[in-house]
Amino acid sequence: MPTRKQLADALRVLSIDAIDRAQSGHPGAPMGMADMAEVLFRHAFKHSPLHPTWANRDRFVLSNGHASMLLYAALHLMGYAVSLEDLQNFRQLGSPTPGHPEYGVTPGVDFTTGPLGQGVASAVGLALGERMLAHTFNRPDFELIQHYTYCFCGDGCLMEGVAAEACSLAATWQLGKLIVFYDANGISIDGKIDAWFSEDVGARFKAYGWQVLGPIDGHDPAALETALKEAQANTRQPSLLICQTHIGLGSPEVDSAACHGAPLKKESLSQTKASYNWSHAPFEIPEEIYAAWDAREKGSKDYEAWCRLAQSYQAKYPELYAEFERRLRGDFPDNLAQVFTSLETGLGRETKALATRKASKSVLDALTEVLPELVGGSADLTGSVGTMTNATKVFDPTTGAGNYLYYGVREFAMACIVNGLAVHGGFLPYAGTFLAFSDQAKNALRLGCLMRTKTIWVFTHDSIGVGEDGPTHQPVEQIAVLRALPHMTVWRPCDSKETIVAWESALKTQGPTALILSRQSLPAIEREDFAFAKLRRGGYIVQDCEGSPELILLATGSEVALAAAACAALSQEGHKVRLVSMPSTEVFQAQEPEYQEAVLPKSCRKRLALEAGIPDFWWKYVGLDGAVIGMEDFGISGKAQDVFKHFGFTVEHVLEVAHKLLA
Amino acid sequence: MPTRKQLADALRVLSIDAIDRAQSGHPGAPMGMADMAEVLFRHAFKHSPLHPTWANRDRFVLSNGHASMLLYAALHLMGYAVSLEDLQNFRQLGSPTPGHPEYGVTPGVDFTTGPLGQGVASAVGLALGERMLAHTFNRPDFELIQHYTYCFCGDGCLMEGVAAEACSLAATWQLGKLIVFYDANGISIDGKIDAWFSEDVGARFKAYGWQVLGPIDGHDPAALETALKEAQANTRQPSLLICQTHIGLGSPEVDSAACHGAPLKKESLSQTKASYNWSHAPFEIPEEIYAAWDAREKGSKDYEAWCRLAQSYQAKYPELYAEFERRLRGDFPDNLAQVFTSLETGLGRETKALATRKASKSVLDALTEVLPELVGGSADLTGSVGTMTNATKVFDPTTGAGNYLYYGVREFAMACIVNGLAVHGGFLPYAGTFLAFSDQAKNALRLGCLMRTKTIWVFTHDSIGVGEDGPTHQPVEQIAVLRALPHMTVWRPCDSKETIVAWESALKTQGPTALILSRQSLPAIEREDFAFAKLRRGGYIVQDCEGSPELILLATGSEVALAAAACAALSQEGHKVRLVSMPSTEVFQAQEPEYQEAVLPKSCRKRLALEAGIPDFWWKYVGLDGAVIGMEDFGISGKAQDVFKHFGFTVEHVLEVAHKLLA
Repeated sequence: MPTRKQLADALRVLSIDAIDRAQSGHPGAPMGMADMAEVLFRHAFKHSPLHPTWANRDRFVLSNGHASMLLYAALHLMGYAVSLEDLQNFRQLGSPTPGHPEYGVTPGVDFTTGPLGQGVASAVGLALGERMLAHTFNRPDFELIQHYTYCFCGDGCLMEGVAAEACSLAATWQLGKLIVFYDANGISIDGKIDAWFSEDVGARFKAYGWQVLGPIDGHDPAALETALKEAQANTRQPSLLICQTHIGLGSPEVDSAACHGAPLKKESLSQTKASYNWSHAPFEIPEEIYAAWDAREKGSKDYEAWCRLAQSYQAKYPELYAEFERRLRGDFPDNLAQVFTSLETGLGRETKALATRKASKSVLDALTEVLPELVGGSADLTGSVGTMTNATKVFDPTTGAGNYLYYGVREFAMACIVNGLAVHGGFLPYAGTFLAFSDQAKNALRLGCLMRTKTIWVFTHDSIGVGEDGPTHQPVEQIAVLRALPHMTVWRPCDSKETIVAWESALKTQGPTALILSRQSLPAIEREDFAFAKLRRGGYIVQDCEGSPELILLATGSEVALAAAACAALSQEGHKVRLVSMPSTEVFQAQEPEYQEAVLPKSCRKRLALEAGIPDFWWKYVGLDGAVIGMEDFGISGKAQDVFKHFGFTVEHVLEVAHKLLA
Repeated sequence: MPTRKQLADALRVLSIDAIDRAQSGHPGAPMGMADMAEVLFRHAFKHSPLHPTWANRDRFVLSNGHASMLLYAALHLMGYAVSLEDLQNFRQLGSPTPGHPEYGVTPGVDFTTGPLGQGVASAVGLALGERMLAHTFNRPDFELIQHYTYCFCGDGCLMEGVAAEACSLAATWQLGKLIVFYDANGISIDGKIDAWFSEDVGARFKAYGWQVLGPIDGHDPAALETALKEAQANTRQPSLLICQTHIGLGSPEVDSAACHGAPLKKESLSQTKASYNWSHAPFEIPEEIYAAWDAREKGSKDYEAWCRLAQSYQAKYPELYAEFERRLRGDFPDNLAQVFTSLETGLGRETKALATRKASKSVLDALTEVLPELVGGSADLTGSVGTMTNATKVFDPTTGAGNYLYYGVREFAMACIVNGLAVHGGFLPYAGTFLAFSDQAKNALRLGCLMRTKTIWVFTHDSIGVGEDGPTHQPVEQIAVLRALPHMTVWRPCDSKETIVAWESALKTQGPTALILSRQSLPAIEREDFAFAKLRRGGYIVQDCEGSPELILLATGSEVALAAAACAALSQEGHKVRLVSMPSTEVFQAQEPEYQEAVLPKSCRKRLALEAGIPDFWWKYVGLDGAVIGMEDFGISGKAQDVFKHFGFTVEHVLEVAHKLLA
């Protein structure tokens, strides 16, 4: 039987050899964290390599994602579908071993990491998911869901504010099954961290309410195991294990930034292997090491035992189990269609002016009644963004009950936690803040897009229509930012009808959706030949003229009513004008080309787009002969109607620009 | 003489009356913080209302900017150019009393606030500026710069991770003259904060290394003053005063979120005034209260005393004083032009391939030799982004010496601190990270744009050219995000020549500049009729054809070389093709229309833009008849050349698309 050190060294050697072969990667962190990985994966981690999506497996997030080779090496040795050839193709195009771990790409990778701090923050979401799912589905003698969430992170992760935000919440929420191993090696890329990270991290986490264990010698498996058991035993507090390690352990560059982000030099590589007494060829792992790491048999047994538990559970609670399975599959209940029918015939026929944030709240009122997988929340703007409904219950940390989260003023952590909930399985999370503050969550929104997680963002107060709060609170470029994100579906509805359709789309889209909603009331738009099916196209004709249009007006959200007024005035003048509402350009772009051409015929070059945001995006639709009325500058504090007027969002100004185009 | 309570009540009453008149605003916080304001402004704050830009004044940042009326009321009473009429026009279009405090709009407002947490983080930058400027210019017996930086913040500010990031640095940097009053009222918009902010804030700040004072009764002026003196006396540690206050003090809605963000109801308003024994008409302030608040005489005396000190200093250190004045004016030394001439004739004539991040480093090498106002730094990527030079010295917390900052992995705090340094005066801060991580700093970049502060962002690793690190590290939408920011000037140079011009533009532009730089080497581009003056246009013809072009190729950065190769091949085929490099669309757009038309004649509709980023932006230049080769999806891990090929950035693919356009 190999020693624990040898088992850890196998991770080290595979890591440095793969990095050497790729001539790219980060050797220091895998070398430093290998003993932590040996302890966690071989002695605590509940999983089944042959069933990597098992719902009740422990979750693992490598927040310092640059240590990816550590994880790939462990997955390989434990028997996941990560081959030796995959390790040899580390960081090569199309391999399942990309530079940083990517969810959906590699079996056994539970979360995409790389941007530091977000792994820790998202692990909070995974741990929260466990807690909530367990509360909903576990029954006496049936612990259907009962797993830990483990996270490795480094100094850099804990410098990032997003980790601070989320860890504060983790303690408040009493997420005792969240266990974070802090690889405290004292080195970040710029060198020894004392000059920029001098705080007492342990004391900080105690201040949040965490159980802090250590400092532990991160290369002492027995000490690590003792601490880990202590962490597991405390189910009321999340635990931080402060593991003092040596980055690049065994290499001449140990304890320095030199081994952080570049392959070891050839001579270092051989010296390092010599220091491990490792004499095997690159990528050659002795059978007894494979055998000692192999987790397939044990994992399959654990998995099968759980399947038997699930079967008995199903026998005793057939409906509940069906619901459990439905939620994990991400299917919707059959009565959802009726809910939308009711919304269409109720809210959808309202003729009085209503803010789209309020229409959204009405849709949510109905949805939360029938979709218990919806987990809502807001970054301290619950009332303003309309994310709480009669059917939502505030999460109760002592029991795990509830489906609504008060995130406090922490937009970035909120987005990470939402991503974690979505990736956990069993939830469809939505969350709200002002559109201007989507900025703070930007990189987490991006990560959600990259992972294609189904999440719904309720971004209200969508323009200068915010009014008095002024330019810090008036978004101008944020809609463009969200549209620029691959796989983000953006909807900016103009009224209640489009808001219903936007929510419907959000539920059905595999990937994040951003709902861009007005603070102010918007009139119900009158449409020719109205049908909800038209709205589902993302862009459609609201009003048309006889024959071919001379001018096409395009608008979204609050500007559709303005465009409609201008359209009426121009028609009155005898112009042939078409009005197109374009609440979701992504959805419109996904329509067949013939439909797109029918709405926006190439032959009509006089096109005018209106949106109270930066204009750049709209040139795509209006071309070199068109015009855009948008926001070329930040907004200004004042009454909303004064601000709109100030920036030219008036019928007069629209007509002026239209006349120039028509001249 | 009015009592201190009455003097504080004057702030309260002006606040609630102005909010009532506007029927918009946040009464609770001004009512809660009025006693803190009375203590600070009347008993400690060094300033001169008639000289609001005095370099040696204390700085004040209202991080919970929604309490703006508190500040406007105090400025009015102290004698700043904020009139009673201005207060009556609170939150009205064009008034100097916008919804949240705006730097440059209101005399006496030292920083734009509103997005919570950033005020605290930027105050760290202001305090750092004081420390560095004092070290550079103070001489024995001549404390030319010696001021405190005060900040008020609320619970929400301290929930935000950006405050956590910056406060950790503030302690490491020993910014003892930073004093933060924490308005601990226990209420945020969603209600009592216990359910989302249960941490021990004092213990957290102690863990950072702060002096933590309190809890103090935030309505007890004597207790506040004692704590403030203690804070002032400790010049090695920043101080946090935990002030327990009652939001909405005196109103029936006291201690509840009901008074946070909406005007008091009429009956509450009168009950509140009754509780203050305040019987005056709205906006009527008794003379004795004005007299007690008036800071003009004392302020002018202090200011004049400082002017005398400065005069003696000037007599003794004429050159140093001239330099001090130059730096405060933001002028450049005369020899800067020579530096650029040397760069143009040296680096600018290099013909070998070079990464633009390396070219940028060479420019910085030269600039930091002659511009001591440059303060550099990086969020733990110093070597990769090339922000450190021979002339930079790492900031020394014990002395205040140095002009280089290790921010650690804290992009958002870095951006806030850079904003603070820029607003302090005397500095031209620049800072670097990978372009992908500009996301984390987004809202602070926005705030810099809103304030038009001169700051320079070194964003390297600008595309899928990042290669092996994969999609989390490969920006695709970030250039579009930066271009979407009003007042942000974006440069994506294609080679060393354009990099020199980009830096030159950054120095001269009043507002932030983002330099988008390649990780990988880029060839020096051959240009017809080369002149640096052409490059300064932001967009220019690199290669032209005889007569009118059939096709215009537009490209930026690494794609210019690709476009040049395609251009050569198409010309070989007999096509008339023009190649345009467009490193800065903002600068190009600022050229006279005739120039723009000469480069991109409206008559030429066959246009093809190339940029390894999301394509949406470029439709503005190519129109409905053109095409864009860009990134429609996130990147992928692999060797850079493989990744470029994978996404169609090859001559073959460019020719294929060009041929379609030409067909």
